[in-house]
Amino acid sequence: MMNRRLLLQAGLVGAATLSAPFLIAANAQGTGTTGQKRHKIVIQVSDNDPAKWNLALNNAKNLQDDVGAANVDIAIVAYGPGIGMLKLESPTGSRVADAMKANVRVVACENTMRAQKIAKDDMLPAISYVPAGVAEIMKKQGEGWAYLRP
Amino acid sequence: MMNRRLLLQAGLVGAATLSAPFLIAANAQGTGTTGQKRHKIVIQVSDNDPAKWNLALNNAKNLQDDVGAANVDIAIVAYGPGIGMLKLESPTGSRVADAMKANVRVVACENTMRAQKIAKDDMLPAISYVPAGVAEIMKKQGEGWAYLRP
Amino acid sequence: MMNRRLLLQAGLVGAATLSAPFLIAANAQGTGTTGQKRHKIVIQVSDNDPAKWNLALNNAKNLQDDVGAANVDIAIVAYGPGIGMLKLESPTGSRVADAMKANVRVVACENTMRAQKIAKDDMLPAISYVPAGVAEIMKKQGEGWAYLRP
Repeated sequence: MMNRRLLLQAGLVGAATLSAPFLIAANAQGTGTTGQKRHKIVIQVSDNDPAKWNLALNNAKNLQDDVGAANVDIAIVAYGPGIGMLKLESPTGSRVADAMKANVRVVACENTMRAQKIAKDDMLPAISYVPAGVAEIMKKQGEGWAYLRP
Repeated sequence: MMNRRLLLQAGLVGAATLSAPFLIAANAQGTGTTGQKRHKIVIQVSDNDPAKWNLALNNAKNLQDDVGAANVDIAIVAYGPGIGMLKLESPTGSRVADAMKANVRVVACENTMRAQKIAKDDMLPAISYVPAGVAEIMKKQGEGWAYLRP
Repeated sequence: MMNRRLLLQAGLVGAATLSAPFLIAANAQGTGTTGQKRHKIVIQVSDNDPAKWNLALNNAKNLQDDVGAANVDIAIVAYGPGIGMLKLESPTGSRVADAMKANVRVVACENTMRAQKIAKDDMLPAISYVPAGVAEIMKKQGEGWAYLRP
């Protein structure tokens, strides 16, 4: 869990005379077993606009391509006017399926579904659900995830 | 590189002779006295679009419903083209009042008001003001608040 | 304010016999040499809308005015439909130049340029480039930068 970079910034690495030595690096984002920093990002989709849905999917792919798919956790959370991205008839349905195959987590907001009288049967298969999309987005940030709103 | 404020928060500055157990609270988001994590989120309103204003208010309510109103601090910051949300004639005026009754902090940007020649008399009663909405949004994140732009 | 989980992660709970110096590097955002907190913010431009480009530039200026230009690092990252902000014919070209003179970093996404067949010769002079704008935005947040999407 040590974060060497933070320690270096604090001028602590090489501090040789500590006598009850202990060093603490406590940032919210952990590191992988290789020491490579693991990236985490939640992508918000809240517009009723297929161009935005495609942009969100492009963004997810570009993130994976840039840092390596194995090095980044991505969750796309659709809520409010963005929920259409995840409905059966969504024009981005096949791209959403591709994203899930590539280990992007795709999440729909049940609050929104209730308000818009949408059942799970009306939604794309294999997506995930949370009670409140906005709460998911808030909690993820509290756990150190970055935020992106395309 | 030491962060004096954090040390102060942890009660460590000046504690010269610590010899035994000490405890460090190091993440940006504090926890309540019960150990339950306290959530904090700043919601940005910067569109001249009443649908967005209603969405922001819905989001605030859903956040409170999901984690419990007592467990989350919410600030809605309106600036730029979003300032109309907080003007006297705002179509969302009564909902803004309800949000404030529910302990949502509602904040207007004075930079925007100056640029648009809006006086406080033109604004909804009981709202708060900051010199620069964007700076408020930045500072809150620096203090561990999540960010949401509906 | 104590966060028992973090302490457990750091292996410190129950560490009873520490007797001497300890140093703590704890938050993701560093402080300047004066002890004044240094602010950092990445501003996303991803709309094909000159009003948004001007708003982003206004936001950068207001941030500098509020906390002092010397106390804040600002990066504006344009990608996707927002890339036009940084093209030679951009209506905000002269304001972008002014922002760079004021030490705002202005960054274009090479993924977007490739997709839209835009060459560096088509872009405003003196801007910076990153392979993937979204990755830059994610990484900055991972380093403690705030996020703003005007």
